[in-house]
Amino acid sequence: MFFASDNWAGAHHAINERLMKESTRFAAAYGTSALDQAIEQRFNEIFEREVSVFFVATGTAANSLSLASLAKPGGVTFCHTEAHVIEDECGAPDFFSGMRMSPVDGRNGKMDPKILSSRIARYPQDAVHHGRATAVTMTQATEFGTVYSLAEIEEISRVAKANGLPLHMDGARFANALVQIGTTPAEMTWKRGVDVLSFGGTKNGCWCAEAIVFFNPEMAKELPFIRKRSAQLFSKSRFIAAQFEAYLQDDLWLDLARHANAMADRLRAGLAASNSARLAWETSANEVFAVIPKDTAKAAEAKGAKFYDWLEPHDMAEPVGDDAVLIRLVTSFATEAEDVDAFLDVIAAG
Amino acid sequence: MFFASDNWAGAHHAINERLMKESTRFAAAYGTSALDQAIEQRFNEIFEREVSVFFVATGTAANSLSLASLAKPGGVTFCHTEAHVIEDECGAPDFFSGMRMSPVDGRNGKMDPKILSSRIARYPQDAVHHGRATAVTMTQATEFGTVYSLAEIEEISRVAKANGLPLHMDGARFANALVQIGTTPAEMTWKRGVDVLSFGGTKNGCWCAEAIVFFNPEMAKELPFIRKRSAQLFSKSRFIAAQFEAYLQDDLWLDLARHANAMADRLRAGLAASNSARLAWETSANEVFAVIPKDTAKAAEAKGAKFYDWLEPHDMAEPVGDDAVLIRLVTSFATEAEDVDAFLDVIAAG
Amino acid sequence: MFFASDNWAGAHHAINERLMKESTRFAAAYGTSALDQAIEQRFNEIFEREVSVFFVATGTAANSLSLASLAKPGGVTFCHTEAHVIEDECGAPDFFSGMRMSPVDGRNGKMDPKILSSRIARYPQDAVHHGRATAVTMTQATEFGTVYSLAEIEEISRVAKANGLPLHMDGARFANALVQIGTTPAEMTWKRGVDVLSFGGTKNGCWCAEAIVFFNPEMAKELPFIRKRSAQLFSKSRFIAAQFEAYLQDDLWLDLARHANAMADRLRAGLAASNSARLAWETSANEVFAVIPKDTAKAAEAKGAKFYDWLEPHDMAEPVGDDAVLIRLVTSFATEAEDVDAFLDVIAAG
Amino acid sequence: MFFASDNWAGAHHAINERLMKESTRFAAAYGTSALDQAIEQRFNEIFEREVSVFFVATGTAANSLSLASLAKPGGVTFCHTEAHVIEDECGAPDFFSGMRMSPVDGRNGKMDPKILSSRIARYPQDAVHHGRATAVTMTQATEFGTVYSLAEIEEISRVAKANGLPLHMDGARFANALVQIGTTPAEMTWKRGVDVLSFGGTKNGCWCAEAIVFFNPEMAKELPFIRKRSAQLFSKSRFIAAQFEAYLQDDLWLDLARHANAMADRLRAGLAASNSARLAWETSANEVFAVIPKDTAKAAEAKGAKFYDWLEPHDMAEPVGDDAVLIRLVTSFATEAEDVDAFLDVIAAG
Repeated sequence: MFFASDNWAGAHHAINERLMKESTRFAAAYGTSALDQAIEQRFNEIFEREVSVFFVATGTAANSLSLASLAKPGGVTFCHTEAHVIEDECGAPDFFSGMRMSPVDGRNGKMDPKILSSRIARYPQDAVHHGRATAVTMTQATEFGTVYSLAEIEEISRVAKANGLPLHMDGARFANALVQIGTTPAEMTWKRGVDVLSFGGTKNGCWCAEAIVFFNPEMAKELPFIRKRSAQLFSKSRFIAAQFEAYLQDDLWLDLARHANAMADRLRAGLAASNSARLAWETSANEVFAVIPKDTAKAAEAKGAKFYDWLEPHDMAEPVGDDAVLIRLVTSFATEAEDVDAFLDVIAAG
Repeated sequence: MFFASDNWAGAHHAINERLMKESTRFAAAYGTSALDQAIEQRFNEIFEREVSVFFVATGTAANSLSLASLAKPGGVTFCHTEAHVIEDECGAPDFFSGMRMSPVDGRNGKMDPKILSSRIARYPQDAVHHGRATAVTMTQATEFGTVYSLAEIEEISRVAKANGLPLHMDGARFANALVQIGTTPAEMTWKRGVDVLSFGGTKNGCWCAEAIVFFNPEMAKELPFIRKRSAQLFSKSRFIAAQFEAYLQDDLWLDLARHANAMADRLRAGLAASNSARLAWETSANEVFAVIPKDTAKAAEAKGAKFYDWLEPHDMAEPVGDDAVLIRLVTSFATEAEDVDAFLDVIAAG
Repeated sequence: MFFASDNWAGAHHAINERLMKESTRFAAAYGTSALDQAIEQRFNEIFEREVSVFFVATGTAANSLSLASLAKPGGVTFCHTEAHVIEDECGAPDFFSGMRMSPVDGRNGKMDPKILSSRIARYPQDAVHHGRATAVTMTQATEFGTVYSLAEIEEISRVAKANGLPLHMDGARFANALVQIGTTPAEMTWKRGVDVLSFGGTKNGCWCAEAIVFFNPEMAKELPFIRKRSAQLFSKSRFIAAQFEAYLQDDLWLDLARHANAMADRLRAGLAASNSARLAWETSANEVFAVIPKDTAKAAEAKGAKFYDWLEPHDMAEPVGDDAVLIRLVTSFATEAEDVDAFLDVIAAG
Repeated sequence: MFFASDNWAGAHHAINERLMKESTRFAAAYGTSALDQAIEQRFNEIFEREVSVFFVATGTAANSLSLASLAKPGGVTFCHTEAHVIEDECGAPDFFSGMRMSPVDGRNGKMDPKILSSRIARYPQDAVHHGRATAVTMTQATEFGTVYSLAEIEEISRVAKANGLPLHMDGARFANALVQIGTTPAEMTWKRGVDVLSFGGTKNGCWCAEAIVFFNPEMAKELPFIRKRSAQLFSKSRFIAAQFEAYLQDDLWLDLARHANAMADRLRAGLAASNSARLAWETSANEVFAVIPKDTAKAAEAKGAKFYDWLEPHDMAEPVGDDAVLIRLVTSFATEAEDVDAFLDVIAAG
């Protein structure tokens, strides 16, 4: 019953096998091998256009270096109030980019385009005192388990573009959002105006595979130096490439995400039908937020269930209340239906 | 004939097998799993005292974050003129630590203690204009393939301590130096006055395993935050831990380093006996520097030999000359004797 | 009718005369002259205890270097949502301190201690992901023209101390707040728990005199290096000292602040009595916020009145409305009663 | 007998009078007043072309922000081994620009163009590991009291341009060099290929007046934000403008520099004729380096002479020796011939 996070899962065997194969060869270091280059080419196919791809060690690095590549002195980046970049990365985006993360409200983890617009409006072009609006970053799927629709991405993008700002997407759970919408990588990114993407593989079956994808090569031109100076250039970079090769082959990544989402659906259905628990808000990717009685939470933990307590958002429709607790449940490629059912049984038992 | 760098090698099968085993389990993320903690304990045994251990993604990160943990505003760190931290990390140590790397000369990649002493003396305690002497960093084995003897480490350490400066050791090739001297990890580090160590596993058989080891826990207390802010905290950290488990088990790491050094010895012997090539200077770990005729170098490359041209040090006893070229050859755990012999044959053939 | 800002005023003649006197002498540079040291001693008297004093060039520098001296990696500093440090310094506090400024709401420019407390609570000690609560900064007088009472300062201080956080005060308009309360510098700072103060003289009659005052010398020990590295150490530092000497002599600074506040009182009284204008909210130092008809604002500007439009706070009791505009009026040591009356006549004329 | 530094002098009375006049007026803050703009226009005339001018608080700020405006990630700036930016600014240029200062040797404080060229050659364009050559900075007059001839500036400039690098000039003692050569500001800067200039007024009769002058407006476009974020935007900026107005009027600045240089000539002549002292090397601006007996130095100090001991350069033609000491003597606009003669008498007396 491991629902604490999708990064508690291990790695998929197809990815492991590819790593094994890689381990017996010699090859050029620092991202210059034939395999590294082949995988860059593979990203072109996946995104249906020429992209610039850079592997890094962590999702925090992908976000931070993406923003660093867009940075200007005195720059301000707009993100959701509860975004990972502002709440969960210990200031790394600020550190690497030198920019301030400016919070934008919006329900269920999605920035409200109107609020975004009014926040940006506080930074007129010539106002050296306030700093200057420089970038917008959004998370897909969001930290709340919700997914921006294509139209919603376009709305955010339109606000960004109307203000001359590049748009970054934190895609730590990109695949989960993609299969939930049922669209293509191109449709969910550059065709909607996304300029830079943090493309996460670690949470979805790799053990360490994160990439920055630039849809505008001009924006990527400082990244080789930014990455090296940021201590994010792997010497044996091809082991990241190998993971991505297996990950992207025969739609493995999409299958893994579909599985994780299906397990979350199973959880959602079970909790919605429960007498003792309720869904905190609608989610649609591989994260589920539920309100359960405190005693039930304790009982579940005693039986080995792993999940995190979550801070109650200030604008929750129906407050959690004193006897209950808000919890987050995350499924992954490795979650099994039996485990979901076992957890639902524990909840039902109260 | 892959002698370009030890990071062109793949990964040792024992390490791969351990990774496979790890991949099927769930476990806590961000370095909090039982395995992560067990490996920290393992480092205590290896170093015969309680140490603080932090995994990071690259050797550059290990060096940069080590120095960041020792940093003071206006700080100056002293290193060899050709040290990796000043010449090969794109300014990462300066970026993360906010300190200036100040070059100290010395033959064959080793800082001269007298020159170090006189360099430090330029920074009197109250001199706010110059900045202030804050740390010393040395590389073991050095970038020149040489190895500081225990007495030489102690000399550097004595200068550092006499000036109240902590001592960092860049151990990207720690194992190669260790087995060359034939001493223990404790003797080569804290017993000689080393305070912080970049402990590298990647070049010696892991595919990505680097650790910062603090012998003084007090110095480590900011590192958890420094590491997270630096985007160096792996979510699936236990896959680093797993590599180190296999690496450190049954002296595997020492065996691998012995093999690499033996292959370098074979190269050294062959080149020393050669009519056309000569050793550029004495080396004793897994790096060999040779002067060979330009034509021979071209012929070797044509036959598939991989190595790097090297910049001639300004103080070479016997200059390279116009018709020759200085090359660097690096062996690894994966180098085979047949390959060494094949290369020597190519050189002999001229 | 210059009410745009108190930094539109020139410099007081007593301060000028002191500068003249200083200009014919030779003296040691970089803050080491006898005069520099005498003024540091003078600050001890003003604050009734031994303090550490550092002159810097701007109020932004005073705030930024104060926070830099309190900084920790991954640190978060709490400030009011509309504080100068977060809204008007182009990210300088973040740049110098490496910390994120985290906004805390509260009416009329004052942080609400309860909200502050709950914001800090989001950063438990061991939570490396969020970053860590590191400092609190408050502005006295506030950006809204209001003044924290001694009891209110103590409340903020108590929350800070309960969480082990040092407290910084941005005193760009310190004197105006001080004489408004009618208390002593000691009572308004360290006796209430303030650890570091940005002590501003520029807005109150100097032409450039800003100081950082540490009540805890331990916290000041890195500042000499931080200041020099931040390019804030004046070579002819004694010209700052000379300004402060005149400024602090015979209570000149208090007289100047009293005059500025009295001129603001005169404005407040006139506007409150006006048929066409109203006070936007209660203020008590040398800033006045008024709601006036748009046409009146235009007419006033046409007649040479200088003031700034102000962004409507989201929580204004009585909204500004479409036909009116919110303006800020600032008085200074150089404001004359005739000018205030002339402005009030213009407003009355509509 | 104040020869410690030209920043021990006060301020010239013409500059003071202009400040007095300014102090009674109201005017717009933060560099937007009519006076600020008039002075920018004045710089256009002085330099015979349109330039972008930015006032800052210190010479260190002028250098640091100049380099920050030229910075790239992983950037390396080349400067003389003993340049102020690397030896006397506590790492400020590195801090603000994020670049490493890379030392280039050369006799008497001037970079050797051949050595500069070979240093730059170590950074090939695609070499992400080393970092990348990004800027060259030279000091005029140098820290050794010498002055680059126009031809020498052109040589440095040619090396920079051949490598695509912008050229910065640290002109803390710009006026002293200018009158020594007897040329125009345009000839000594942009006509020789200088792109950015730190134009110092403080050492030559102002009390605080430093400016960054861009000859290429494109390079200046980030500076407004860099300056504000760096806490270097004065609120009462027009007091800097006022100093520059008086400084630049009727060639005052050139007259003051001529006087300082003449006093240095008087010193040089006296020391050259002395039996006990000798000139350490040829200088030609307002700095003089002399070797005098240790006893004489002590006697001079006892009689109130102020000067600094200097570190012996490693390549001094005739070493200082054990019984002597190397000292630096600096003259200024305020130095009087009587003081020079008094000092020479003291030296003669031994």
